[in-house]
Amino acid sequence: MAEPSTISPAPLLKDELDIVIPTIRNLDFLEMWRPFFQPYHLIIVQDGDPSKTIKVPEGFDYELYNRNDINRILGPKSSCISFKDSACRCFGYMVSKKKYIYTIDDDCFVAKDPSGKDINALEQHIKNLLCPSTPFFFNTLYDPYRAGADFVRGYPFSLREGVPTAVSHGLWLNIPDYDAPTQLVKPLERNTRYVDAIMTIPKGTLFPMCGMNLAFNRELIGPAMYFGLMGDGQPIGRYDDMWAGWCTKVICDHLGLGVKTGLPYIWHSKASNPFVNLRKEYKGIYWQEELIPFFQSVTLPKDCTSVQKCYIEISKQVKAKLGKVDDYFNKLADAMVTWIEAWDELNPSGAKSAELSNGASK
Amino acid sequence: MAEPSTISPAPLLKDELDIVIPTIRNLDFLEMWRPFFQPYHLIIVQDGDPSKTIKVPEGFDYELYNRNDINRILGPKSSCISFKDSACRCFGYMVSKKKYIYTIDDDCFVAKDPSGKDINALEQHIKNLLCPSTPFFFNTLYDPYRAGADFVRGYPFSLREGVPTAVSHGLWLNIPDYDAPTQLVKPLERNTRYVDAIMTIPKGTLFPMCGMNLAFNRELIGPAMYFGLMGDGQPIGRYDDMWAGWCTKVICDHLGLGVKTGLPYIWHSKASNPFVNLRKEYKGIYWQEELIPFFQSVTLPKDCTSVQKCYIEISKQVKAKLGKVDDYFNKLADAMVTWIEAWDELNPSGAKSAELSNGASK
Repeated sequence: MAEPSTISPAPLLKDELDIVIPTIRNLDFLEMWRPFFQPYHLIIVQDGDPSKTIKVPEGFDYELYNRNDINRILGPKSSCISFKDSACRCFGYMVSKKKYIYTIDDDCFVAKDPSGKDINALEQHIKNLLCPSTPFFFNTLYDPYRAGADFVRGYPFSLREGVPTAVSHGLWLNIPDYDAPTQLVKPLERNTRYVDAIMTIPKGTLFPMCGMNLAFNRELIGPAMYFGLMGDGQPIGRYDDMWAGWCTKVICDHLGLGVKTGLPYIWHSKASNPFVNLRKEYKGIYWQEELIPFFQSVTLPKDCTSVQKCYIEISKQVKAKLGKVDDYFNKLADAMVTWIEAWDELNPSGAKSAELSNGASK
Repeated sequence: MAEPSTISPAPLLKDELDIVIPTIRNLDFLEMWRPFFQPYHLIIVQDGDPSKTIKVPEGFDYELYNRNDINRILGPKSSCISFKDSACRCFGYMVSKKKYIYTIDDDCFVAKDPSGKDINALEQHIKNLLCPSTPFFFNTLYDPYRAGADFVRGYPFSLREGVPTAVSHGLWLNIPDYDAPTQLVKPLERNTRYVDAIMTIPKGTLFPMCGMNLAFNRELIGPAMYFGLMGDGQPIGRYDDMWAGWCTKVICDHLGLGVKTGLPYIWHSKASNPFVNLRKEYKGIYWQEELIPFFQSVTLPKDCTSVQKCYIEISKQVKAKLGKVDDYFNKLADAMVTWIEAWDELNPSGAKSAELSNGASK
């Protein structure tokens, strides 16, 4: 090929991916991401005071929604979107018209790999989403589709095609994603270990999905990515991404879709206040002891062939089984239904296409 | 502390661990391992012609068993120990009187970590075995007990004590552990990726356990580490460690024990002949398509409270469900029973202690 080094390849999935960013401040952090994000469209969800102006650096292509916009677009259904909590980001997933979503927090910066090179996190997420997952059997060399790796001896050949990947969960160097008690006990701990692996979370195994650095296939799993009722007026915070992750994993397992975790890393710049976090989390820390057994035992009937149907079924089980833990879960179950109604209203062909594509992937 | 660099710490578990090596040749490879293995006792299982003399480098403390010894010690029960196949190594597990076993192939050398330092594989295995596993929920920062890591936000606190670790499965740089078809297709592929992680294989997930670089707690899981009928007079080879791994994982899941994979790496020096391997493997490649669903569906009744009871129960299910795949599995099921009888004969107090210690760990 002539002059390969002077030709930049076209950014992957440029017209098929939106970057969703929830924020309450000016988006100066985008300067560092400019080489990687500028070709893509941004959806900014402004949290808190809608009269405040959020500054976005020059040259980015974006749409921005504040609370007034959310209320106007969703009407009474806007009650399902959290306020004063980054859980509001899921509104961005709903208004996107693209096949893929990448979402990132505004305190996340570009990390470096062990060779000192800037990590293009978005590119790695896209690679993760575009190659299959292997949820039915563990591969000891991790992602068998990476260059230099494969399926090892003893891996059944019938499982080597894998299944479509719905979610790519990326990690963080520097400030680890700890809960308030662990933050309080280990205030100085930093994550410095770069683990050069991507792996599929096995079928039947739950994981703590962090929303800081996350990508997913909106067509395959979008309606499950509801970040719940958190923040203003709610008894709990910092469980938005966890809730979405547990619902998503159960639905992926049911529909035969894959969830990957590992690379890419971002640089998480600052620890949130552990005392504030403790106030937000303390009910969740107690409730999660009930939530994990609940999600481990959820079974979805065979006629749940779309993400929406699965999600509505889970909302019923939440009401039936978690309503007695706290009345909050009755409200949350209702909000889950509202979320799906709002999703289908904004994505009129989505319900059908989700059903078709999942059906084909099984 | 005074002169910390001049005082070598005592080797971990020096009097509680045996190193088991199956071989057909002089053990020159031990020279490279001398700094790490010399304090430990070796059990060498000589495969093939018993009249041949195996040379062991000076200064190692060892016992050596050839086929004549195996026949003499086990009598008619020696039929369960494979001949002309490295599966014979499991005889070493049986005659050991120690709590822990490390087994390594004689074509494995000391690997280097990314900083260029020699990896003390045995020390890392011991660390893996001495700290708990977390099979019930995935931790996205991998082993939460390693320095610099912990459980992340959303990890239930009730699960943070973990469970006892029964198995530590180490990996290999250079020649990857591929089956014959993959070897044939990718003759030049080398594993150069050092993944700095140890993780628990989740409950309910099977994996391909390689016997090249493997450690386990003999008291917790020893009787499940039977490497089956392979090699001379058998229709199959190279599935010895896989068989042991599938039985072991199902029993660990039932008894609430953990299986770890990842670090440490060894350097696997030479690829075995893919054409020979294909002859050994081809039935296994076909059969494993039946074996994986079988092991995924094995359930053990509540009264299987010891490894021995679990193993006998699996042997019954092998006969009932796999006997129709090939008569080989009827023979194998019988050999599994013989193995347990031989184990209990050589370890008269083992059956009881295994039951007690597993009971306590649940």
